[in-house]
Parts: sequence; structure tokens; C-alpha cells
Amino acid sequence: MTPPAQESEDRFLAWLRQQDPSLAERIGDDAAFLPPAKDRAVTMDSQIEGTHFVSGLPPEILARRLLAVNLSDLAAVGATPGSAFLALSAPTSFDRRRFFQAFLTACKRFGVELCGGDLATTDRITLTLTLFGKLGASGSWLRRDQGKAGHSLWVGGQLGESAVGRLLLGAGATAGPREEEAPRLPPELEIPNHLQEAAGQAIRRHLLPTPQIDLGQWLAGLPQPGAAIDLSDGLGKDLRRLCQASGVGALIDRRALTMTPALTQLASLLGRDSETLSVGGGEDYHLLFSLPPEVPEPEVKGCRHIGKLTGSPEVLWGREENWQELPNLGWDHLMTETEKAPHRS
Amino acid sequence: MTPPAQESEDRFLAWLRQQDPSLAERIGDDAAFLPPAKDRAVTMDSQIEGTHFVSGLPPEILARRLLAVNLSDLAAVGATPGSAFLALSAPTSFDRRRFFQAFLTACKRFGVELCGGDLATTDRITLTLTLFGKLGASGSWLRRDQGKAGHSLWVGGQLGESAVGRLLLGAGATAGPREEEAPRLPPELEIPNHLQEAAGQAIRRHLLPTPQIDLGQWLAGLPQPGAAIDLSDGLGKDLRRLCQASGVGALIDRRALTMTPALTQLASLLGRDSETLSVGGGEDYHLLFSLPPEVPEPEVKGCRHIGKLTGSPEVLWGREENWQELPNLGWDHLMTETEKAPHRS
Repeated sequence: MTPPAQESEDRFLAWLRQQDPSLAERIGDDAAFLPPAKDRAVTMDSQIEGTHFVSGLPPEILARRLLAVNLSDLAAVGATPGSAFLALSAPTSFDRRRFFQAFLTACKRFGVELCGGDLATTDRITLTLTLFGKLGASGSWLRRDQGKAGHSLWVGGQLGESAVGRLLLGAGATAGPREEEAPRLPPELEIPNHLQEAAGQAIRRHLLPTPQIDLGQWLAGLPQPGAAIDLSDGLGKDLRRLCQASGVGALIDRRALTMTPALTQLASLLGRDSETLSVGGGEDYHLLFSLPPEVPEPEVKGCRHIGKLTGSPEVLWGREENWQELPNLGWDHLMTETEKAPHRS
Repeated sequence: MTPPAQESEDRFLAWLRQQDPSLAERIGDDAAFLPPAKDRAVTMDSQIEGTHFVSGLPPEILARRLLAVNLSDLAAVGATPGSAFLALSAPTSFDRRRFFQAFLTACKRFGVELCGGDLATTDRITLTLTLFGKLGASGSWLRRDQGKAGHSLWVGGQLGESAVGRLLLGAGATAGPREEEAPRLPPELEIPNHLQEAAGQAIRRHLLPTPQIDLGQWLAGLPQPGAAIDLSDGLGKDLRRLCQASGVGALIDRRALTMTPALTQLASLLGRDSETLSVGGGEDYHLLFSLPPEVPEPEVKGCRHIGKLTGSPEVLWGREENWQELPNLGWDHLMTETEKAPHRS
């Protein structure tokens, strides 16, 4: 009954699964499959001021980001977006009308229908979305437990860019309510001219991740789909979850995690190591997925080959013959702020 | 675009429905009906420390109450409880294991299956539950827009008792984690011996409302069902919502709202008017429902006849020929603490 002094998210979820054997079957993927027919996927994600985003962001950005991070979970199971339920609690001064206008516009873009929710007044903005997905044209769900030794391992885009954007926002950069508006970088950050575009792009990537719905559906439609998970907590955590669910290990080519020169320089300006951000920065919202040997590469552009799944349980990174354990960095939602990887590096 | 200086929940929802004509069809009842087949009902309710409950309650009570208030929404549409998704954010010191043990036990009692959710760390306990319901044996949903002039009007139990319990908790009463444990009343409240049982009962009623699932299913199974809504925000608000959705008015027999002598005395000890608590105290979580003339009374015990629906739009209360507008008291989830009825009386 007494929790360990240091409760971590994965330890807690392992305990939770032990409480009821049928729970273990239901809890595991980025989205759950709704009984009895399991023809609908459901995901639920919260965004809380001070925990998931800095204070002072425009309501429009919060609205688009909330939808995007939930859509990313649907992408990870290969679902087509459906109905949404939104719980919004915020101070009375929060402009709910601006929030909802942006939210409904974003919903239309992705074919999502808002169907209900809950409103409350609190001193801290707390947003929780429950989002439904339908089975895609393939008729199969994508899952995190379908990885096999010998599969190649891929990510849907640049890792660590979102973390750079988050650090820039934490250092005083700001963003306006309109999507096309460039973020503002405070002069005291002294970002050189040639890095300003990459800095703006990193902030946008952080504030408005691109849910990889098309990639998820393409993966689900493969004759023998591999495993997939969305990278919300960071490669260090999420790759281990995929490996554990699939009963495999992984070898990651360390060179494939190198950021672009501009992002590497930005990380350095912010006093961070770029590899640490790639592995543990989190909130990338790209898919991490495996492909069977008969599928040489994904049809969707922008994906990167980062390694392969193996039969041994270790999750290693390195190059050539020099392999080490992949650092177990990333977000743990049950640890305090100072214990989180991005603040530890 | 600019919201009115004083945004109220009903005004905001009216604005929201105007943003998208199809939204107006989807948003309205205590639970939404999931497209495309509308064979599943979905409800979502948040419970936030400091807004919906006082700080310091045991995790077990929060768990049971969260489930109960969501089940009450399913009761109001005549649904059979199904799957649940839980978002829990709390300080690291919050005992999530105790919370989940009680939550899973309560789920079993009502046939609910936890299927997923979200965990986060914040400084304030915030619980959001999304709960699914299946169509009951009747094959019909119960709705709030089916009231007709001439229907008799009923509530599922004593109004205002929960509000008395909330006030006692606010005044320093406490409750332990076990259901069978009697709440503790602080001596400084000087509650006379003959009122202590009623005080304990009011606290229990507040902390653990009884969702009227059986009543909802019985109502949904009537050949010509009337309207129903669950009394979460108080009779003053919720009766108006039922009347507006149904296009009718109401006459309430003021005598039928009288509390028991013990509750009336407790309200008075707490400096409150008992009628105000009956109309605006909120969080009763009884069903408010109408019955067609051919059904003289509900089969489920404990219901009270409080009046009737009329063809004129007014919502009145009184006795014999002396009718006045029913006070528009109750909780508005977009107003600040001091503007809420229970704190205004």
C-alpha cells in the first residue's frame, strides 16, 4: 500500500496494472481501444500551466497545441481523428472565446468534432482533452508491442528541436496568437542573425507540433506493421516503453541523433548539450516506429533511420563497436520539476 | 470577439453554440451521444481542489466522489456505465496508490472499466474523468428536451442536504478514508446531540452522492419518457436548463422544497437560509425529471413531487395563488468564488 519514497511514472503504472489483471490488457498504448468492439481509439492528455507550458501564452496557441498533442497519440495507433471532449478550467480573466474560436478552427482542419466537456474556474489554466479516433482504411490499429528483432527503427523528424524551442520560451522568447507570426526573441539572449530562423522554427515546433496522422495510417496499413509510439516524453523513455512492450532491445546509431548545426549552436548558447536534448528533451511529437525488413523505408517524407531492434533486452547507443546504455533521460510525469531530465542536464 | 465583462456559463455556452451550427446539435445534455451510431453516451467532469472540494480530503473520498458525479451524468441520460478515462494531476506528495485502489473498487461496484488516462504533477489536485455509457435495456436515451406542459415534476431526493454537508466541511468537519467511518464534527461548531446524525449524513451525502442509475434507466424505459437532468449546479439553474431545452415553463410548490427539521436547524446554525440552499446549494446529484400524466409516480423510492411543467415560459415557485420567479441561484462555473450563490446567501 505504501508507495516507494521515489514514485516514478513507469513504476506507478506497473503497480496499477497489478491491481486488476484486466487493466493490464487495457492500458498500454498511446490510445486505448474502446470495448466491446475495439473499433474506436480513445486518448486523453492534459496540458497544465506551469507543468506543460509557460504562463502567458496566447489562448490560440494553447488551443492548437492541446489538439495537436492529442492527435499525435491517435497518429501513434494509426487512427483517423473523430470526436473530442474538452475540460477547460482557467481564471475568469482567461479569454475562453478566443480559445474556443482557435480550437474549433483547428478541429475543422483535422476533421475533429467537439461533442462536449466541462468548464470550471481556477487560478491555473488546466486543459484536458479526450479524443476519439476511428479505425483507418487499413482496418488495423498500430501498436507499440509489434516490434521484432531485425526491424529497422525510425523517427518521424528532428529530435530535440522542440526542447530547444521550450528553452528559448523559458529564456524570454514570446509568441503571438496568429500562426503565421514569427516568435519574438529577446535581445538579451544575443542570438546571432544566422540562428534566428532556426530559433523561430524551434519555438513553433514546440508550440505547434505536427501530429503525424498520415504516417500513422500508412504504418497501420502495412501488411505486417511494426511497432509505433509517439515521442512525447523523449526517446530515452519512449524507446524503452516500445522495447519493453515488444519484448526486444535496440541499437541506436548515435550519429543519427545529431542535430542540425544551427540547433546544436542554439543548444550550446542555452548552455545545453544537444545530444542530451535529442534523447531526453521530450515533446517532439514525432512517431518512433519500426519497419520489418521487407519495407526498406517509409513512404512519408522527413523520417530518419536511427537504428534497429534486437533480440537482447538492452537499449544501447553508440557507433561501430562502441556501444553503451542509452541514457534513461526524458519526462517522468510523477517526478518533481527539478528531477526531470531537461532540468538535470 | 470580446467577451462581455461578466461572462456566465450559460451565456458562454450560447455563444459557443453559435460558432458552429452542428455544435448546437451535439452539446446540450448531461452526456453527449457518440457519433456516428449514437449508441454510446460520453460525459466528462472535473473535480479541482479549492474549486470543487476543500483541501485535505483523503484520496479515497476524492476517488469515489469523482466517479459518483460522473455516473450521475450517465444516470441523467438513462445509460449503463461502461469505460472510464482518468486524468490525474496532483502534487508528488499525493498518494496516487490509495487513490487508485479506491477508484478501482468503486469502478467494480458500478461495472465501470478504467481504460486509460493521463498523469501529471502539479501543486493542486485536478481530476478529470471521461466516462462512457451504453444504451440501457430500453434502447432509448433520456434527454433534457422531452419535457411537456402538463408533465409532473420530480426530484430524486432531498435537496440542499449536500450543501449543508459542504458548509460543515468548510467549517472544519472532517472525514476519514473509510466509507463506514462517521465524519468528525469539531466541538467549536457546537452542534447539538440531536443534530449530529443529520450532520454526519449531510457530510456523507456531499462527499459521496448516490448516482441514480436505476432511476435513469427506469425513466428511459417509459413508453413516452419525460425530460431529465442531474442536479449538479442547483435547482435554480438546472430546472431552467431543462425548461429551456424543452420549451416549457414550470410551477414549483415551495412547500415541497422544505428541508427536514434537522437540516433546517443545521442550516440555521451555519447562518444560512434553508430554502436558499434547496434552490441554489447545488451538488445534490439527484435527478430532476418530468413524468407524463399517464405515469402517476416513479417506481423508484425516495423521489419527491415538486411541481409541474407549464406552457408559459416562466419558472415560478410559490403556493396556491402566490407565485414568484424561482430565484436564479446555483453554481456558475465561469464566475468567481464570491459571485457563486452558496457564498452569496
